[in-house]
Amino acid sequence: MRPSERAPDQLRAVTLETGVNRYAEGSCLVTFGHTKVLVTASVDEGVPGWMRGKGAGWVTAEYGMLPRATHTRGRREAAQGKQSGRTQEIQRLIGRSLRAVVDMKALGERQIQIDCDVVQADGGTRTASITGAWVALRLATRYLLDEGVIKTDPILDQVAAVSCGVFNDLPVLDLDYEEDSSAEADSNFVLTGNGDIVEIQATGEKRGFTRAEFEALYGLAEKGINELFALQRAAIER
Amino acid sequence: MRPSERAPDQLRAVTLETGVNRYAEGSCLVTFGHTKVLVTASVDEGVPGWMRGKGAGWVTAEYGMLPRATHTRGRREAAQGKQSGRTQEIQRLIGRSLRAVVDMKALGERQIQIDCDVVQADGGTRTASITGAWVALRLATRYLLDEGVIKTDPILDQVAAVSCGVFNDLPVLDLDYEEDSSAEADSNFVLTGNGDIVEIQATGEKRGFTRAEFEALYGLAEKGINELFALQRAAIER
Amino acid sequence: MRPSERAPDQLRAVTLETGVNRYAEGSCLVTFGHTKVLVTASVDEGVPGWMRGKGAGWVTAEYGMLPRATHTRGRREAAQGKQSGRTQEIQRLIGRSLRAVVDMKALGERQIQIDCDVVQADGGTRTASITGAWVALRLATRYLLDEGVIKTDPILDQVAAVSCGVFNDLPVLDLDYEEDSSAEADSNFVLTGNGDIVEIQATGEKRGFTRAEFEALYGLAEKGINELFALQRAAIER
Amino acid sequence: MRPSERAPDQLRAVTLETGVNRYAEGSCLVTFGHTKVLVTASVDEGVPGWMRGKGAGWVTAEYGMLPRATHTRGRREAAQGKQSGRTQEIQRLIGRSLRAVVDMKALGERQIQIDCDVVQADGGTRTASITGAWVALRLATRYLLDEGVIKTDPILDQVAAVSCGVFNDLPVLDLDYEEDSSAEADSNFVLTGNGDIVEIQATGEKRGFTRAEFEALYGLAEKGINELFALQRAAIER
Amino acid sequence: MRPSERAPDQLRAVTLETGVNRYAEGSCLVTFGHTKVLVTASVDEGVPGWMRGKGAGWVTAEYGMLPRATHTRGRREAAQGKQSGRTQEIQRLIGRSLRAVVDMKALGERQIQIDCDVVQADGGTRTASITGAWVALRLATRYLLDEGVIKTDPILDQVAAVSCGVFNDLPVLDLDYEEDSSAEADSNFVLTGNGDIVEIQATGEKRGFTRAEFEALYGLAEKGINELFALQRAAIER
Amino acid sequence: MRPSERAPDQLRAVTLETGVNRYAEGSCLVTFGHTKVLVTASVDEGVPGWMRGKGAGWVTAEYGMLPRATHTRGRREAAQGKQSGRTQEIQRLIGRSLRAVVDMKALGERQIQIDCDVVQADGGTRTASITGAWVALRLATRYLLDEGVIKTDPILDQVAAVSCGVFNDLPVLDLDYEEDSSAEADSNFVLTGNGDIVEIQATGEKRGFTRAEFEALYGLAEKGINELFALQRAAIER
Repeated sequence: MRPSERAPDQLRAVTLETGVNRYAEGSCLVTFGHTKVLVTASVDEGVPGWMRGKGAGWVTAEYGMLPRATHTRGRREAAQGKQSGRTQEIQRLIGRSLRAVVDMKALGERQIQIDCDVVQADGGTRTASITGAWVALRLATRYLLDEGVIKTDPILDQVAAVSCGVFNDLPVLDLDYEEDSSAEADSNFVLTGNGDIVEIQATGEKRGFTRAEFEALYGLAEKGINELFALQRAAIER
Repeated sequence: MRPSERAPDQLRAVTLETGVNRYAEGSCLVTFGHTKVLVTASVDEGVPGWMRGKGAGWVTAEYGMLPRATHTRGRREAAQGKQSGRTQEIQRLIGRSLRAVVDMKALGERQIQIDCDVVQADGGTRTASITGAWVALRLATRYLLDEGVIKTDPILDQVAAVSCGVFNDLPVLDLDYEEDSSAEADSNFVLTGNGDIVEIQATGEKRGFTRAEFEALYGLAEKGINELFALQRAAIER
Repeated sequence: MRPSERAPDQLRAVTLETGVNRYAEGSCLVTFGHTKVLVTASVDEGVPGWMRGKGAGWVTAEYGMLPRATHTRGRREAAQGKQSGRTQEIQRLIGRSLRAVVDMKALGERQIQIDCDVVQADGGTRTASITGAWVALRLATRYLLDEGVIKTDPILDQVAAVSCGVFNDLPVLDLDYEEDSSAEADSNFVLTGNGDIVEIQATGEKRGFTRAEFEALYGLAEKGINELFALQRAAIER
Repeated sequence: MRPSERAPDQLRAVTLETGVNRYAEGSCLVTFGHTKVLVTASVDEGVPGWMRGKGAGWVTAEYGMLPRATHTRGRREAAQGKQSGRTQEIQRLIGRSLRAVVDMKALGERQIQIDCDVVQADGGTRTASITGAWVALRLATRYLLDEGVIKTDPILDQVAAVSCGVFNDLPVLDLDYEEDSSAEADSNFVLTGNGDIVEIQATGEKRGFTRAEFEALYGLAEKGINELFALQRAAIER
Repeated sequence: MRPSERAPDQLRAVTLETGVNRYAEGSCLVTFGHTKVLVTASVDEGVPGWMRGKGAGWVTAEYGMLPRATHTRGRREAAQGKQSGRTQEIQRLIGRSLRAVVDMKALGERQIQIDCDVVQADGGTRTASITGAWVALRLATRYLLDEGVIKTDPILDQVAAVSCGVFNDLPVLDLDYEEDSSAEADSNFVLTGNGDIVEIQATGEKRGFTRAEFEALYGLAEKGINELFALQRAAIER
Repeated sequence: MRPSERAPDQLRAVTLETGVNRYAEGSCLVTFGHTKVLVTASVDEGVPGWMRGKGAGWVTAEYGMLPRATHTRGRREAAQGKQSGRTQEIQRLIGRSLRAVVDMKALGERQIQIDCDVVQADGGTRTASITGAWVALRLATRYLLDEGVIKTDPILDQVAAVSCGVFNDLPVLDLDYEEDSSAEADSNFVLTGNGDIVEIQATGEKRGFTRAEFEALYGLAEKGINELFALQRAAIER
């Protein structure tokens, strides 16, 4: 039995609320149960120095967690003077995941900067961030199309992500914090709308885990991500 | 005429929503018009090294702004590796303002850490932070009283803050960003429930300003802060 | 009775010695009693990137304290790898105060960098810095005029500053360290030659303080700053 | 055809030379073709503060790359003042991988610090590091057993790692730099001696990739890692 | 001919003014011509962690340069967030030089912190710092003796320093900035009162230089340092 | 008797192995007994900003030590976020030493970056670094000549370095760690092929030392460096 009494293949309640920031070209407040991430997509007319003159754009992401997003207050990274290894790892993952579904030539020499700020954390913040970031990115690129800044839609496909794990020897979908902190194995799947792999990360936490268990997690992820795709499409409907 | 069509002595719509974070001992989402600040108060059973053994507590504050809280995206301080001078100045002000109404002996050797994170900025983020932080602090200390951790209420009085300025030669209350960015003078008043001064900061921006203008701002601030006190009391009613 | 036996409205002995650095375009060693600050004004033919091409100049300030300027040795900020929040707050105040009396167009696209280094501290280092910095700035701009680098005098007015506070319930002018460390309220006034406000900072330290007390401090500041203006004029006489 | 003319399931020449540092309790120079990583395992009698008093040990890893390990010289992280996100991600992976096969109670309250320094890089530095680090760790723990410092062998199993990828639509084992830089998909597998998963990381680089391709990579990895296990066992034979 | 018209073996005017800081246990303003360094010696009742419990003291030094100490303004190290390699090299030299003449056991478990802040630079700041630092140190230890804090004089001997160089093929004593910036060779000698070497640093700047030239510099240094010893003794006379 | 049983004027076994890095334009693994330093010379087509447009090149050096190069593991500078004062002092010395024998005009507007990474340390790492760095630099410039990138050989002479010290009152050549850690005096000599001084650093460690002792060290250094010159010439023979 899962602590939340969910079925093994059941997502938490997921919401994707758009238009939550009055300045950003795209924004989305994504919730997976008690996990809440505020995502903004900001258009920057310019690209990093190493990309200039190539006629192509870029998508990058930053991730942060408010100090009291967690059960006990964590230290503020800005006050500590550096981002943790975990933070950097997550924001690199978010950026890679989004870039996998963007046609950089169609975007032109401009950058879309994604900010994912975790307002409240209950497990799965990186996968919620990716799922919500796609919505914000979709809205920001639609804005560029509507304004006539770009002619061709740079979004090639959807991308969404979910975590799965082995909890009390049972493969389950969408771990919350209580499950995550005692799971035997933890994994994150990032898939595109056509089912291709963008990224898989799987880690044995308490023990190594078997290929059979891994295959079960993979199946759960495919089911959950398909549900997320439907929610994403609903969120961006005008 | 103010851009927002408000009367010179009229606050923006102010809301103080409590209980917005499921982990923090006290929390408040404060809005002044389009300015939104998420405040949490976290109890830490321990004090900084230099305060140990004195039988007294401490209240400290940190302030941050999400990168896209503003019209154009700002750089993330955690990524830059340091907090700006402005950020440090504001968080020092918030901490001082709250400590002015706290009996540190009654708090005992524990610290309350206030986090003010600006989700959306439209002028007056520091004064909104102080006003909301008092609510979060009030809730966190009530929690300590309810739990029997402390016996005596450490909150001695209310504290709230508002900005005023000279805009087009007219003294006005509660500047929004459009007013703030072209005001001739800008000031922040932090007052206690009994009307005493905790802090006054007044700066000539476009030009120096006169003592008469300053006195007018002071009067507006007293009126506005009294309205904020009523809103604070309503917010913490059970 | 004040520890220094001064009258409530009496400044400490103030000196403004010019020409104390053989390289700087303007320099001034300012003393307020035992407080000594070495100020240099350096002309830099160039402005920060964000100001280029606007045909206007800039004035900026940095502040530091020698480690043993104080009763007990403080840590060297360069060795610690960052400037404290206090240092940044003070140097921002000095820069704002000076810019209030400078015509940036008349200065042309060049920057004047003010360095205020506290050699010995006995209270009031920020107000002494501002008062001395105006002298160094005045000399550096006179140098530019004498050299024919600029045609129009960019100095619009004098600016000077003083601290006042409530000490043993008595409003007093120009706090020394002993008074400052036990004052009930502390304030800094920065005024222009024509009496306008550039900046007011007032803080209740031990307790909140009343509007009446604040008005008394304001009156003391006006008296003291007028005396400082006379000393500044004497210092820059050729 | 692979640039190196290797068969799709063929590892590069792999060597594991032990005893390469006269001070370290365990050391190993691991080469995968032109990739060379110098690994040391250092015993530290003490654990990080958050682990004290629990009667258990810790294994941690740091990773670095000499500036000219690569085709063009990279910047020295020590001179830049921080480790890159990539470096932190890799050293976190190495630490997790090793801890998966260590009995921390058997190790006692001491720490083994692994240093992986890439002397020359030609792809696969993180997987080579893990493979070599196990050897260094095995030697350091044997030293502790031989010296009588610990009684029970803390090493529960072998762990090794290899990269696989899709190169010109062909799944191949052990990518070198030329393959890696143009592969469609890249993955790292970390497995234990009994075949369990410690970590899988799979990323679509040029395009998303299919579940079938992923399964092929998994099979290649299992084959390659079994060969690495045999080499590890040979390396630590006395 | 030297630019200053000094004889090859002639020091600049050297002054050692004591008692220049009202808080420091020892202080000295040292000038070598236009070079001015303010030195304080601060007693700290405690030693660094790695020295605790050994019954011995420590002497350490920090060095800094005010931004406009030089012809063109340099950047403030505190604002840059780090001390330059040059600064660290100099302060390490000052510390080593002083420790060579201190009996650490006689000092007891306390530290004397020397701060050398260059107010104006015209060459030879590190050697002026050492020469003045000995005076400040001598005064601080005399204070400890006078107060009865220590019983035995920890100062074993004098130490002083001077620079020499080859300028226009002529060996000369005590380089000023104009000479230093075009010298063929530059050297710093730190000697004790009995003529022993504490430190020699000699560098070919424009060209390598010969052993004969080096011996000539050594002779000049011995002459100059003997004159400095006499000035030091005069400075500390009561 | 020396711990290593060497004669007072006897170098340790010195080897200079070239071609140890497949990417660098020049490389050398230098060993002095158990001290091993890996040196690479990297050609960078460009010079630092302050040198642009002068038609001259630059040679610079960085130095690092692997954490377990020493008896007990040291902290990794990249993880600490800064290079120690010692590291900076050494890399500045290496750079100066090499530049003394390079014709920067002949090099053209390009930079050669030397990296000296200590793989194992047993005393004398800075002098070994200089000695090996000359070999790597020689090979990199030969490469530029062979490729026709430059026409004139920029290498004007050899440069090599050795340490000497007073150990148990006996002047000895080429200190190993055991000698170094208890020597009364320590010195480093950097000389050119024609015998000129590039740099001398001599420090009294346990006590000051006499001019006679210094002269003895100088003689030992000349002998040792002449042997190193022969080894350098042998190493670069094709």
